[in-house]
Amino acid sequence: MTLTGQFFIAGERRGAGETFHAYDPGKGASIEDIGFFTSTEQDIADACAAAEEAAVAYANLPLERRAVFLEAIASEIEALGDALLSRACAESGLPLPRMTGERGRTCGQLRLFAAEVRDGQWLKLRIDHGDPRRTPPKPDLRLRMIPLGPVAVFGASNFPLAFSTAGGDTASALAAGCPVVVKGHPAHPGTAELVAGAITKAAADTGMPAGVFSLVTGTGNAIGAALVADPRIQAVGFTGSRSGGEALMKIAASRPQPIPVYAEMSAINPVILLPNALANRGKALAAGYVASLTMGSGQFCTNPGLVLALEGPDLDAFLAEAGALVEAQAPQTMLTAGIHSAYEKGSAALAATPEVITVARGIHPTGPHEGRTALFSVAARDWLAKPDLQHEVFGTSSIVVRCADRAQLLEVLRGLEGQLTATLHMDEADNDDARALLPVLERKVGRILANGWPTGVEVGHAINHGGPYPATSDGRTTSVGTLAVDRFLRPVAYQDMPESLLPEALREGGQRGMITRLDGAWHLS
Amino acid sequence: MTLTGQFFIAGERRGAGETFHAYDPGKGASIEDIGFFTSTEQDIADACAAAEEAAVAYANLPLERRAVFLEAIASEIEALGDALLSRACAESGLPLPRMTGERGRTCGQLRLFAAEVRDGQWLKLRIDHGDPRRTPPKPDLRLRMIPLGPVAVFGASNFPLAFSTAGGDTASALAAGCPVVVKGHPAHPGTAELVAGAITKAAADTGMPAGVFSLVTGTGNAIGAALVADPRIQAVGFTGSRSGGEALMKIAASRPQPIPVYAEMSAINPVILLPNALANRGKALAAGYVASLTMGSGQFCTNPGLVLALEGPDLDAFLAEAGALVEAQAPQTMLTAGIHSAYEKGSAALAATPEVITVARGIHPTGPHEGRTALFSVAARDWLAKPDLQHEVFGTSSIVVRCADRAQLLEVLRGLEGQLTATLHMDEADNDDARALLPVLERKVGRILANGWPTGVEVGHAINHGGPYPATSDGRTTSVGTLAVDRFLRPVAYQDMPESLLPEALREGGQRGMITRLDGAWHLS
Repeated sequence: MTLTGQFFIAGERRGAGETFHAYDPGKGASIEDIGFFTSTEQDIADACAAAEEAAVAYANLPLERRAVFLEAIASEIEALGDALLSRACAESGLPLPRMTGERGRTCGQLRLFAAEVRDGQWLKLRIDHGDPRRTPPKPDLRLRMIPLGPVAVFGASNFPLAFSTAGGDTASALAAGCPVVVKGHPAHPGTAELVAGAITKAAADTGMPAGVFSLVTGTGNAIGAALVADPRIQAVGFTGSRSGGEALMKIAASRPQPIPVYAEMSAINPVILLPNALANRGKALAAGYVASLTMGSGQFCTNPGLVLALEGPDLDAFLAEAGALVEAQAPQTMLTAGIHSAYEKGSAALAATPEVITVARGIHPTGPHEGRTALFSVAARDWLAKPDLQHEVFGTSSIVVRCADRAQLLEVLRGLEGQLTATLHMDEADNDDARALLPVLERKVGRILANGWPTGVEVGHAINHGGPYPATSDGRTTSVGTLAVDRFLRPVAYQDMPESLLPEALREGGQRGMITRLDGAWHLS
Repeated sequence: MTLTGQFFIAGERRGAGETFHAYDPGKGASIEDIGFFTSTEQDIADACAAAEEAAVAYANLPLERRAVFLEAIASEIEALGDALLSRACAESGLPLPRMTGERGRTCGQLRLFAAEVRDGQWLKLRIDHGDPRRTPPKPDLRLRMIPLGPVAVFGASNFPLAFSTAGGDTASALAAGCPVVVKGHPAHPGTAELVAGAITKAAADTGMPAGVFSLVTGTGNAIGAALVADPRIQAVGFTGSRSGGEALMKIAASRPQPIPVYAEMSAINPVILLPNALANRGKALAAGYVASLTMGSGQFCTNPGLVLALEGPDLDAFLAEAGALVEAQAPQTMLTAGIHSAYEKGSAALAATPEVITVARGIHPTGPHEGRTALFSVAARDWLAKPDLQHEVFGTSSIVVRCADRAQLLEVLRGLEGQLTATLHMDEADNDDARALLPVLERKVGRILANGWPTGVEVGHAINHGGPYPATSDGRTTSVGTLAVDRFLRPVAYQDMPESLLPEALREGGQRGMITRLDGAWHLS
């Protein structure tokens, strides 16, 4: 597939007039091979109109056809071959092995959601039979989940494949039966065009309604704002900065019809080193910590930006060990010029804070847009006095908070904003400490790890990649894993509906293989 | 139980200073027996602090104890006897049989949610076993739902019992494991005090943490605003006007941590009379319609405010029949002076609209705050040209839209805002028409009825009392039925957590009787 610079509206390539170029952060230079067209207001309106037109037809296709469509997207992405990988690497500064892995994750995710469509338990069937002899007569009620309608998805800078055009939000919305309009991230427009071409081909080959997918592109915020404001859009998926997510939330809340926004935004992911673990294996913990912190230039939402431990010689030894490892860290290219400069600013601000100790810095960068690893520490009382220290510094920066005692550690945890994850490093002798912390952590985060590192989010059924605000805009949901489908569904009940007009799954005995709540009792028929 | 005019903060009666009085709309006069105290900012803060303090303890009680608490509330409400009913009737103008029925519904609902707590399937257990041999090693992940934290509930004017202090929002939030702070509706403060006393006694008798329930009271909007703005409140349940719901949504969205608002607000509940049904049983339909319209002085969120049918002699006959029935309707006391005057204003505005025909008015009121039934009709083209005609007129007012043909009927439906319900009256020969309308109705409403009337919302498992905006603020949820519990839950995943620290239900083999998604497959163990 050759790049044309065009975007896609309901199966057709489009684009004229104004163009912008991609940027190679590793080279510090624009990629001049192709200009990418900017979608107009009319393009956005056309994409939304086509999505609305496709909504009922797509929602009511047999589930098997929806599943086949998702699988075809995965195959078409694989068929793009190395061209996709090299383009994505050039546009993100990420190395080839990472991009190969991310492609595997993206296609695996599409196939997982295809299986989820077939599984169908997200329909959440419920039947309460009527009783005409009751006073007043009891109606027959049958309930299922249906798709919300067209969904807007924003490509993420830090995952050009797995959280972008055909990423988790798109895959879960399509799985739920919702047409999708993607706003491509301007940092990787070529990657977006290639993937959108794959989706468009898969949609045509599997006979989907044309409006099931569109891609709009451009720089600046106006395109995304117009997309979220369009009355046909019924939900929004976003992964990115807190300011970006909050801007979309404001637009969504001030529409004549407010709509849900699923924004995955900001987290520093506290890691708690409990005393026995710290004493018995501080060196291994330091190695694991620095590896998690620096993976992918620290550009993960689950990056361990905060470590908590009790003051003492064990923590001093851990800091010395981690500091030595940080000093040996080579700088890595960051995703965009903007992200790199925000990192420099954020880490410099920490370094300049009088109460904050710079434990170590990584090797000084020599290439463009390289981030220099930064390890800080601060006393808990100072942390508590300076709420600004909580703000995420996106990249390889982390701060160790030295707590005077258990009460202070608890106070720091209680004062944290909502987080995606919290991690406990613990030996068996730390069990009582862990048990005391768990109820506090449950209130604060979406995923609690023991003796692991928060980076590396398993895509599965029991994962939760979400958390209380501001980790996400809606802590009731996850953006990774099969539970993500639920975000795009809502219940409809049918009362005394003639059998022939009911959806098949709600007819008498039509629940083959489905969990059904039948007159209150649960059946796995 | 004797009224004291006090409210309840975490098990203690409180109140001093400023008071207000209840009002008997049937008599058109204040009820001077007792003055009700207004909660201060400090009272609200204390209620929220106590709720937060109780949150972890209440969430982690054995489910059986939570269920027993809900059942004790029902018993204590019943133990209040006739005093509760007569007070609620005086404060609402509603007749005794209705209030007796509403008490039955309220207590039945509490017991249903107690059973739902025991059922426990809302925990949504998921386990993905790990695999240390995979590269990278696959973690062990286990997920369950946990309560959101303290919930603010607003008493509703139109259901002094079933949607107020111990109503559906309170019952479902308590069932989910969330402490509740109720803002009592100022129209029925005595009812609120009696019911809050019952809850407080039930909480003490069953050993609940004191902060599990509080009631704050007062007139004006400041108390509710302060409650929703309190940082400890994590969700809001509300039933009332669109303007009231939207005001709370604004406050919730502009908090440093925005929170979900479940507001059930506004609907006109279209009823479609399909041609064969209209021809074959227009007279019976007219009788059913007028009965549904006038029940409870029309003060239901599911009141049939809109009827759609094709022009012709059958519709003319229906209108004549319904008009004759409306003319014989006695006026009924409305809930409050404010609701009555809004009804008078709304129905007068319809009557004064040149395109709107006044088909019939009920008998002229003679008592205070009585609403006079109003039946209007309008041509579909005029309806389409005047979007304001869609606004709900709360009370016994309804409008019949005469459609020139099926295309115009569809256009009217497509132009509707979100609704709680839609109703099809149909004979078998109308099946094709119904089939064509269903996909449109599914996009617009939360419950679709055939050959029934939308008033009378069955409390059960397969009910959905919700719908797209502005019927509710969050169409993904229901405020009636067991699915309402889900509103107050969010997922937490545990990764590689030692067995002894896992919640019991997530330990190996700890899923007794629970539906569990185990490595992707569903088990009803």
